[in-house]
Formats: sequence, C-alpha cells, structure tokens
Amino acid sequence: MKLATYRDGSRDGQLLVVTRDLSQGHFAAGVATRLQQVLDDWNYLSPQLEELSLRLNQGKVRHAFAFEPARCMAPLPRAFQWVDGSAYVSHMERLRRARGEAVPADVLDDPPMYQGGSDDLLGPRDDAHFADAAWGIDFEAELAVVTGDVAFGTGPEAALDAVRLLLLANDWSLRHLVPTELAKHFGFLQSKPATAFAPVAVTPDELGAAWQGGRAALTVEVDWNGRRFGRLNAASGMSLHFGRLITHVARTRRLRAGSIVGSGTVSQPEDDAGFGCIAEKRALELAAGGEATTGYMAFGDRVRIEARDAAGASVFGAIEQQVQPWP
Amino acid sequence: MKLATYRDGSRDGQLLVVTRDLSQGHFAAGVATRLQQVLDDWNYLSPQLEELSLRLNQGKVRHAFAFEPARCMAPLPRAFQWVDGSAYVSHMERLRRARGEAVPADVLDDPPMYQGGSDDLLGPRDDAHFADAAWGIDFEAELAVVTGDVAFGTGPEAALDAVRLLLLANDWSLRHLVPTELAKHFGFLQSKPATAFAPVAVTPDELGAAWQGGRAALTVEVDWNGRRFGRLNAASGMSLHFGRLITHVARTRRLRAGSIVGSGTVSQPEDDAGFGCIAEKRALELAAGGEATTGYMAFGDRVRIEARDAAGASVFGAIEQQVQPWP
Repeated sequence: MKLATYRDGSRDGQLLVVTRDLSQGHFAAGVATRLQQVLDDWNYLSPQLEELSLRLNQGKVRHAFAFEPARCMAPLPRAFQWVDGSAYVSHMERLRRARGEAVPADVLDDPPMYQGGSDDLLGPRDDAHFADAAWGIDFEAELAVVTGDVAFGTGPEAALDAVRLLLLANDWSLRHLVPTELAKHFGFLQSKPATAFAPVAVTPDELGAAWQGGRAALTVEVDWNGRRFGRLNAASGMSLHFGRLITHVARTRRLRAGSIVGSGTVSQPEDDAGFGCIAEKRALELAAGGEATTGYMAFGDRVRIEARDAAGASVFGAIEQQVQPWP
Repeated sequence: MKLATYRDGSRDGQLLVVTRDLSQGHFAAGVATRLQQVLDDWNYLSPQLEELSLRLNQGKVRHAFAFEPARCMAPLPRAFQWVDGSAYVSHMERLRRARGEAVPADVLDDPPMYQGGSDDLLGPRDDAHFADAAWGIDFEAELAVVTGDVAFGTGPEAALDAVRLLLLANDWSLRHLVPTELAKHFGFLQSKPATAFAPVAVTPDELGAAWQGGRAALTVEVDWNGRRFGRLNAASGMSLHFGRLITHVARTRRLRAGSIVGSGTVSQPEDDAGFGCIAEKRALELAAGGEATTGYMAFGDRVRIEARDAAGASVFGAIEQQVQPWP
C-alpha cells in the first residue's frame, strides 16, 4: 500500500491511503489519523489499511478524491529517529578522493552513519530555507526505510523483516559547513538542516521484484533547475543493503517503531549515470585535475527527485523544492 | 510545576503532575495524557496543568496518590529531538588532554554538540543493557532543557524564553567504541546508546533564584555503587548557558516543540568536587603520569544521579540504574 500525510494545520497531519498510480486518495481516519500511530500498532492497524488500499485501487471506495502532492507533508512530518548511512561506496570514494582521503578498508564492515535531526521533516513541495547561499547548499537524493521495533543485536536478515515502509528523501547538506564540523569529530549538526521526503511512503511489497534483498531496483531521477543531473540505479551501487544499515544501529541499542534509516546519497560508479548530489560532480571535476566549476545551489534554484520502476511509473511521487532565503 | 510520566503499557505513558516535594502525584488526564501533547500546545494546556499543580501542592486535590519514581518512564519516553552540547569546558579539557589533544580555541563560539538518538529514552529506574562490559560502560550526569518551537537563527536570550522544562539525564557512553567513531568523523552512534532521565521534569520557575541566566545553580550528586563519586555545582563550570546551546542548533534550522537539548557532562575544574563520569577521573589519572587505574562499569554496578537545591531538596528525583547484560 501507499500512504501519505496531508497538511491539516496539526503537527502530524492527516493520514491517507493513495492508489498505486498516485491518482486517488482516501483519508484513513476510520483506521488511524497519523502514520506514527500505525507504526506503533502495525500488526493491528496495517491490515485494515491494506483492506482500504485494496478497495481504493479497485475503485470501490465511495469518497476517494484526486491525490494532490502539493498538499502533502512528509509521510512522517516528525519522527523519533532519523539515522543515515553511507551505503553507496562510489559516493564516499568521490568525496574522499576530492579531500585527499582514502576510503577506510573496513567501510563495508563499519559503515559511516550519522544521527540526523527528525523533529522537523519537510514535505515534498516545501521550500528549503537557508540564511546564506555561501553555505554550499546541496541536495542529496536518498532512499530510506521506516522500521518497526528492532531488538538489540538484530542481524541483517531479521532487520529486513522489520522494514515497514520505503521513502524517497532529499537530505539537504550545507557543504561549506561540513569541514568545520568534521574537524570537531562530533558529526553533522549545522551542516544537515531539515530533510525533505517524497509524498508517498510505500510498503516493500509495492515494489514487487524490484525489492531485492534489502535493495530497491529503481531509477532515481535527479533534475536541477529542469536539467537532467542524475539517472541512478538505486540497487547496483548499494554496497550495504538496508538490513545491514539497521544492524549497524542495533549493535548497541534497540530501535523503536517509526525509526527512519537512510541509504546515504544514491550513487553509481559509472559517470554517465550522473549524480545524486552536486558535491560528487564537483569532486570529479577536482579529481580531473582542474577546479570545481559547478557551483552549489543559489536562491531560487529548484531540485526535482523522483524514483521510477522498470515500467517507468513513479513510485513515491516527486520531491520538487525551491531554495529560498529565510522568510 | 513538576511533571512525570507513569508506565501504562503504552509507548508514551501517562502524564501526571507531582508535588514540589515529590511526595504526591495526580494524573493530568483531564488536561492531557502525554507530555508531548502539552509541549505541542503549551500556551493552552500548561496553564491548566499549573492550576492543577497549585491545587495539588495545596493539598486540595481529591484523588492525589503517593508518587512512586519506580513507576516512571522518562518524562518524554521518546522525543523528536535530542541534541547534546559540551557546555562544561573542564570536561572537554580533561578528556582531550588524556588523548593528547588541545581544546580548540573557538570552543565557546562553536561548541561541540552531537545529535543523539531519541526513539528510546530510559526511565529513572530502568536497567541499562549492554552486550559487552568491555565496551567501556560509563555514565554521564547532565542537565537538559526541553524547548518549545524555536525559529531559525534565534539568539541566546530569545532561546531561553523557549525553555519549557528542565531535566536531569544520564547519557550512557561506551568509551571504548568512541575512538573508532570519532575517527570516522560522523559523530557518535553506537557509542551513545539510550539515554536515561530522572523521574520529574520541572518548569524553570520551580528553581526560583537557582535558575540564573540559563544555568541551574544546583548540586549534582553522583554515586557509583553507593560511593560518592561527584558533588558538582552545575552552574559554576557551565561556560555556555542553555540559550547559547539552543542558538547553536538554530543557526541553520528551526527546532520544534519537545526538542531536548543537553548540557554535556556536568563538570567542575576543582578536582575535589569529583566527577560526573568515569572518563574524567581516568583522564586525571592518566594526566598524573600514571595509568588509568579506575575501570569502567561492570555488570551489576549501580549509578545514582540526583540534583539538589541550596536547601538540599531533590529537584528531579533520582536516577538509579543498574548495568545488566542483554536480556
């Protein structure tokens, strides 16, 4: 099933079920009003939503309405956890090479992962606000999963069983604030402002055969100011699947229902696939011996991120955001 | 007023109002059932809780009951944000000196701060579970504030106006996992498992004159296995007040209601005050030219953390936790 959250003036919005083709929606209020509520009580509530989803897709629900992505908040407008791994090695390799650093030998056993802020997650059409365009404003196209409860020390395969939903994200980064924060060793904080999410969260079964061993065989499309920037296979370059990322967190603690675990920037080693973020393109320019000629985003710039299945259908709907100065 | 959350089988527990002397409680259900709900709608709901608190403290509420800290979850059993600064410079100085590093010159302008996990916050009497005592299990006595909504770029004084509640925390650390994570530059993740909180959250006015310019003039008592380990003045060594810590987060993003902002380990430069964590004592042993003779915690060990006002009264109730292997 596909789920979305409409803006209704509240902090958590109003839950709705959306058709597979993203054309129609129906409020889930008879079952639950908020997505976190469903995640808290998944075994009881999700079958009821599945039932509603089935009837909605069959055109048998009386009060269906046209689905409007512009009315969406993030599927979880706030979450109790957002951790983000770095599962695409080519992303790491390019960025570290540009900084003159090597990728650690044990990166697949001990992936880089940071704890992100989750009190304020942006909707797919929300403007992204920054005080200063000189901060190095960059998008990052990512996939993410929402988990149920995960026990201490859960292994990769069992962790996959805890995947409730898949998401498409834009993990905004302020590149010029990164070096200072990395040097402090405490991780990203100011350099990772609010993350945005595509309109719809989907259960893994919606992907059919494209959900393969914890990877999503989808094409992630990234356009910057209407120009093609990346067409990335989200499975082929993913060195660590989502179960491995969850296991990394669960090594010393349990995860509670509604935790969002991100893949890091989707990346492919083949240069003609393009890029999921500007920093990778700049890193290649630097590595080619020149200077980074591609600038970061300016106020007024737009980014569009969408993921398509093999048939070309949009799975999550599109993220379409504009960069703006603080209001 | 003083607020607590009783375990009731739900993820968010049941909100209650507690008397100033921590002897009596009363469910807040007529006003709100969960603390996050109050934070979401503070201006409307908190006056109603204040009214209940006043009557409870006057002994005028009919269904008051004896307050039992053992029934408490964390005041916020899960939160949408937990960020933790390092506001006590002597804590930083001792740990960095032991690692052979200097404290950065700009540490007061750009404090170290990490984003923590907040999906699973422990109650004051919950056992702390770890797989391996060789991970270097350490407590960290800290103060924290819970904020309301904070706008982008809010300054230190305005940030103090957004402080809704004060908390006392035990920020568990796995010291031997820290060096690997610091070397990865992405911050703490596995080395910072679930944080625990004292039974009661208090509004700043409960501290009276002890709430001074964003610092709490309380004595934080730390006992390890029943032996005195620290008696720390929480105001004198706090180089950056809570408004400054909030401002650091708000530089690039807003904070949403219910964000918890921690002080870092409470520390005093005077050695006879003792310590808020074991790592500081070990650092002094190392700095004295010897080896660190004090070990970290073993399974079965207990830690007790409590904060007292000038009259000796317990402000938040006590954290009393035992270290246990995974169940």
